[in-house]
Amino acid sequence: MKKLSILGATGSIGMQTLDVLRKSPGEFELLGVTANSSVEKMKDIITEFNPKYLAMMNTESAKEIECFCREKQFNIKVYSGMAGLIKIATLEEINIALIAVVGMIGLKPTMAAIEANKDIALANKETLVVAGEIVMKRACEKGVKILPVDSEHSAIFQALQGNDIKSLKKIILTASGGPFRGKSAKELENISVDEALNHPNWSMGNKITIDSATLMNKGLEVIEAHFLFNCDYDNIQVLVHPESIIHSMVEYKDSSIIAQLGSADMRLPIQYALNYTCRKNEIAKSIDFYEISQLNFEKPNTDVFRCLKLAFKAGTRGGVMPAIMNAANEVAVDLFLNKKIQFLEISHIIEDAMVNFEEHMNTELTIDNVINIDNKVREYVLNKNS
Amino acid sequence: MKKLSILGATGSIGMQTLDVLRKSPGEFELLGVTANSSVEKMKDIITEFNPKYLAMMNTESAKEIECFCREKQFNIKVYSGMAGLIKIATLEEINIALIAVVGMIGLKPTMAAIEANKDIALANKETLVVAGEIVMKRACEKGVKILPVDSEHSAIFQALQGNDIKSLKKIILTASGGPFRGKSAKELENISVDEALNHPNWSMGNKITIDSATLMNKGLEVIEAHFLFNCDYDNIQVLVHPESIIHSMVEYKDSSIIAQLGSADMRLPIQYALNYTCRKNEIAKSIDFYEISQLNFEKPNTDVFRCLKLAFKAGTRGGVMPAIMNAANEVAVDLFLNKKIQFLEISHIIEDAMVNFEEHMNTELTIDNVINIDNKVREYVLNKNS
Repeated sequence: MKKLSILGATGSIGMQTLDVLRKSPGEFELLGVTANSSVEKMKDIITEFNPKYLAMMNTESAKEIECFCREKQFNIKVYSGMAGLIKIATLEEINIALIAVVGMIGLKPTMAAIEANKDIALANKETLVVAGEIVMKRACEKGVKILPVDSEHSAIFQALQGNDIKSLKKIILTASGGPFRGKSAKELENISVDEALNHPNWSMGNKITIDSATLMNKGLEVIEAHFLFNCDYDNIQVLVHPESIIHSMVEYKDSSIIAQLGSADMRLPIQYALNYTCRKNEIAKSIDFYEISQLNFEKPNTDVFRCLKLAFKAGTRGGVMPAIMNAANEVAVDLFLNKKIQFLEISHIIEDAMVNFEEHMNTELTIDNVINIDNKVREYVLNKNS
Repeated sequence: MKKLSILGATGSIGMQTLDVLRKSPGEFELLGVTANSSVEKMKDIITEFNPKYLAMMNTESAKEIECFCREKQFNIKVYSGMAGLIKIATLEEINIALIAVVGMIGLKPTMAAIEANKDIALANKETLVVAGEIVMKRACEKGVKILPVDSEHSAIFQALQGNDIKSLKKIILTASGGPFRGKSAKELENISVDEALNHPNWSMGNKITIDSATLMNKGLEVIEAHFLFNCDYDNIQVLVHPESIIHSMVEYKDSSIIAQLGSADMRLPIQYALNYTCRKNEIAKSIDFYEISQLNFEKPNTDVFRCLKLAFKAGTRGGVMPAIMNAANEVAVDLFLNKKIQFLEISHIIEDAMVNFEEHMNTELTIDNVINIDNKVREYVLNKNS
């Protein structure tokens, strides 16, 4: 039986991971869970899964959960704050930590889990985007597996099985194109938050849904893919594929392409990461090609979806530039979700931050420096836009 | 340096294999070649590749080649007939024999090569269709690799790498649909040989091109796939995909699908089989998805293309039935190519033979019995249709 912790158990990926566990009786023991402040969802998790350890990022929420455990006689150790997250990511008993928290907050627990020799099922994009070089190097040194949970990176990872990574010529990263595919910049000027939250294929959290609408999500994935699979940016091609059936592809140097396809169900890559190298029984729905009848492809329009271009630029620039871009994006998306800025301003804010913080490019790439510059960029963007 | 023989060197696959060798300097030594009776092509091969051993199925052709070698001072041992083919397939010095002869003639040399512990790159469909059970069992016992050269089976083989074959749920065998896709039976009544030879995507020999037009080629591939990958017929789905970009797919029990894609160039699967498990540099052209823009899929119409239905029936029936079907098909295709019968009669002839030889179904499955029944069926079909 595999023993695991889930960081970010009450989020979209966390909840779907719990469903994978639910449908895999006798295969996993859920030892630790964390959440930010979703007390009610956490109570349900406790009642159903009875983990041994728990952390709430929010201290008040941790207290509430402690009360609940006492009252209902659950024997659970409750922690709080970043120290709590790190505790849950590094539990002595676990084999694997699934990191599904959203944002920069995932970085420290992921590094701690690597240091503690835990395999990582990684659903947190920012960890690789802002510190991919450090994370992958350390994971390699420690012999720790970084198992991608993103559907695209899981697809690439699956397409690489049984092949020598040295034969990899190109990664073809597919993108649904989001809700605004085919629209002109003019048409995007007055997009509402609700329109941007209406993703055609995937059901995801708010931040990632907006990132999908701007194509920054694909940009973050490009940077992730660069680090996960040690692939030059010139050899990563983004391919718009509205049906989201092909989850990504790998082209080898003999020009043969291996693709992974499946339904748009995050439980599939979660299940693959948790069971690697085994494939377990069907949880996600099967694809019926007699019904599908057509798959479409097109080149992304980076003149309209400028975030994708900025991500390639930041990735190629390297160093702390992806961290600068990511921080500016996180704040900009938040401002958009709170109706403080227009949709198209997101890319302008990111570009401005990238220009403004260019002078920090000689900053040494360390976890602390990355967190430090992340804070500075956030402050800068907030000040400038309020 | 890998040392190999090519059986059927002057045919379509043989010539493309030579091109792979030409483009892989220093990687292969071509020790043995065979052909049926193409003396001129064989002279060119001798001049370019200077093999040590050679066989011509036709005795007269063997003599011509012997003269040529004497005249031009090539020190080549020349053999003839089936014994010659077997000699070339089992040369002491070779690691791998590429079997690209067309028809039943491939069976004995393939079995001999397995007995001699040579890995087999198999482009000869009939060997597996008529005697798949015997061939695969013996290859397994001898620890010999059967490396598929058909683009579909190579695709499946590639899609299986790094996965446990026990996780295989379904094979999705793609088919271009041939030149008559979408046509009704009525429209196929007066099809000419030239129309049937005009395949939309692949450049192949005449026999296989007609088989592609009737979909019997796909039927033979279904039976091959059954034996190569030990997959029940119920779990083999034929999917018409007119662009021939996806060369086939594997669905695993978690419902994840792995597909292999590439240009319609046989040099790609040949190169993969010869270099397995390595991938070498690009010979076949790369696919550009920005240009392709669309892939289409449909269910094959087995009411019109009855050969496909018959192949599933023969495969499921098992024993010598695929051999009966194959022999009837080979004769029927030959009759059609010689304008003795109409296009739609091909399936009627096969069905009639399958019904007529049902009484032989308790024949023990041995190589000799398979060859024996093959001869009987040919005789029967020829007598009945001339």
